[in-house]
Amino acid sequence: MAVTVSHWPTGFSSAGIACGIKSGGALDLGLLVADRPVGWAGTFTRNAAAAPCVQWNRRALGTEARALVVNSGNANACTGKAGFESVALSAAAVAEVVECEPTQVLVASTGPIGVALEVDRLIAAVPAAARCLTPDTEAFASAILTTDTGTKSAAEDAGDARVVGIAKGAAMIAPNMATLLGFVCTDAAVGRDELQTMLSRSVEKTFNRLCVDACESTNDMVLCLTTGQVAVDDSTFAVALEKVCGSLARQIAGDAEGGTRLVRIIVTGAADDASAARLGRAVAASALWRAAIHGADPNWGRVVAALGAADRGLDLARLSIAVGGELLFASGEPVGSIENAREALGSDDVAVTCELGGVQGAAEVLSSDMSPEYVALNAFVTT
Amino acid sequence: MAVTVSHWPTGFSSAGIACGIKSGGALDLGLLVADRPVGWAGTFTRNAAAAPCVQWNRRALGTEARALVVNSGNANACTGKAGFESVALSAAAVAEVVECEPTQVLVASTGPIGVALEVDRLIAAVPAAARCLTPDTEAFASAILTTDTGTKSAAEDAGDARVVGIAKGAAMIAPNMATLLGFVCTDAAVGRDELQTMLSRSVEKTFNRLCVDACESTNDMVLCLTTGQVAVDDSTFAVALEKVCGSLARQIAGDAEGGTRLVRIIVTGAADDASAARLGRAVAASALWRAAIHGADPNWGRVVAALGAADRGLDLARLSIAVGGELLFASGEPVGSIENAREALGSDDVAVTCELGGVQGAAEVLSSDMSPEYVALNAFVTT
Repeated sequence: MAVTVSHWPTGFSSAGIACGIKSGGALDLGLLVADRPVGWAGTFTRNAAAAPCVQWNRRALGTEARALVVNSGNANACTGKAGFESVALSAAAVAEVVECEPTQVLVASTGPIGVALEVDRLIAAVPAAARCLTPDTEAFASAILTTDTGTKSAAEDAGDARVVGIAKGAAMIAPNMATLLGFVCTDAAVGRDELQTMLSRSVEKTFNRLCVDACESTNDMVLCLTTGQVAVDDSTFAVALEKVCGSLARQIAGDAEGGTRLVRIIVTGAADDASAARLGRAVAASALWRAAIHGADPNWGRVVAALGAADRGLDLARLSIAVGGELLFASGEPVGSIENAREALGSDDVAVTCELGGVQGAAEVLSSDMSPEYVALNAFVTT
Repeated sequence: MAVTVSHWPTGFSSAGIACGIKSGGALDLGLLVADRPVGWAGTFTRNAAAAPCVQWNRRALGTEARALVVNSGNANACTGKAGFESVALSAAAVAEVVECEPTQVLVASTGPIGVALEVDRLIAAVPAAARCLTPDTEAFASAILTTDTGTKSAAEDAGDARVVGIAKGAAMIAPNMATLLGFVCTDAAVGRDELQTMLSRSVEKTFNRLCVDACESTNDMVLCLTTGQVAVDDSTFAVALEKVCGSLARQIAGDAEGGTRLVRIIVTGAADDASAARLGRAVAASALWRAAIHGADPNWGRVVAALGAADRGLDLARLSIAVGGELLFASGEPVGSIENAREALGSDDVAVTCELGGVQGAAEVLSSDMSPEYVALNAFVTT
């Protein structure tokens, strides 16, 4: 499912190496460097237990950045004062080799929560990472993964400008920007405020429409950095940015932990887009529905139950539900063929449409099935 | 774990037989009859897709009842007009053998949603069920089960009066009274309004503190019927009623689908009891946390992440988390021994305490772990 993108836009380079935070020599340290200070925008988890790196970057919003350092294998969240010190030390180490201020270094971490970060290993590896910098994205994209089965990348042209994004996901995937790490680099000349507005809008329609296990993370963020070297029409850029974010979001849903298929929950006829998205997320969050989909069981009743729990005003008489294109519930009555729907569930991309019979509010929420492997994967993580 | 209770209070009798809704001759029809019209109270799912039986009983609130008919193996929910007709036909069939009005017959169903109920089988079996009526509770308690591994019953004395309850649970267990079927019979002389108030309060503190998979059902209800024959002090009765409901709730959590241990989420220091319960339910609903508990992994970071997602004002510096009695996070710092906590997780009754550092709001939410079997059990139900 992953689309391999080979190069960052001009002005960016990156590296991915193993610094020993993950065991077994797996890549776990990613470094992204811009040739000169660049503008950037970011969206962050709203979790009250947001990790020190999230808080660090939030404080830097509105300034320029030179580099981004990411470690996988440890979220450095809920790690007390040492956690905050680790972020500052990491930024200082990168600033030294890149020759910039520590405040110009953005920081991200992903992995288990509440485990002390072995920051000395990270710091010791920064010079080596700096020596490996290349315009190629793949090593960096690999170094930020946790239980993902492959790298996620996407690229679009925006006129003469280039938009390239890298992401990681897998589990603890819920909306409210608490979904993943996403890093988008571009050379498009877009003002800082416009960039933030466009990124926030893109994220709302893409990453915030992801809901795999409804578990909101403490660490997640999407950052967009731009060298601003290439003139571009704002709306052309906005389209390209949303396409890149959308592609990354689909790749994340398709590679959800323990998931075997992409499940797209399409809600139409809601009061507005926001409530359509809310209802779609409620369906996507239903463990019973996700288990049914895993068994290729078109158990549409669980979709109705999830909608009815999330919307106390749901009108069954106006509701229709289709699974894999087969209409199974309409005007308050079961209809259609369960067998046809079951066949459609054999696909690795399943659409579930919920028409509420109201006005024009619509949204597509990306999810996955839930397998016994999801539970097994998540039963032993602390150690 | 189940406490076997042999007899209903004087004035009630019941039967449980096989009518062919479930395959293989499993018990699937429960009939409970009162010797004369009795007062009753009820609490119901708030799901907008509430089943016809829920709507039928809601309309009967405030009247007297003579009987209750329950089928398992089919929820008769989202089944269109035929579903409403089935409820009326079932009530009429019972009314004929009991010699009362159909409106004096309460109805409940549990099982898969959206499948047409074979009501003819139910109706045909009602006379046989009436011939099997006995003061013994066990056949009735068995006939209302779905994937439960055993019957759930509890009894308490309230002065000279008796309070006996039967319940079923297993999955699709979430608060908002969308948890289960619970039927409590008593001979206590309690006024109708008082009974409703006391039942609602008891349910709020017991069944509504259950959260196994956060999936709210379309069918669930707790009913309390009383012959009103035995004088009793109201507060004595209220205590007994809450004890019976509490015992049934614990039995349901302990027998959660695919669950291997009871997990009690105890939240203290919240703004008030209601927000403590809300936060406890947020932890209980976390698929990642439930998977961790299944692996005896004291992954307290997932508890913090769930709290931080549910309470944007959570103050980590005042938060402490203990798993199995071992303090693992306090004053913003990881503390204690993960190994000690892991050992405690070997028990089949695990307490997780979350002290928020605020005022006196507190609640205990009953949950379970999530196993690969939960997914497997729920992957194939429609057929």
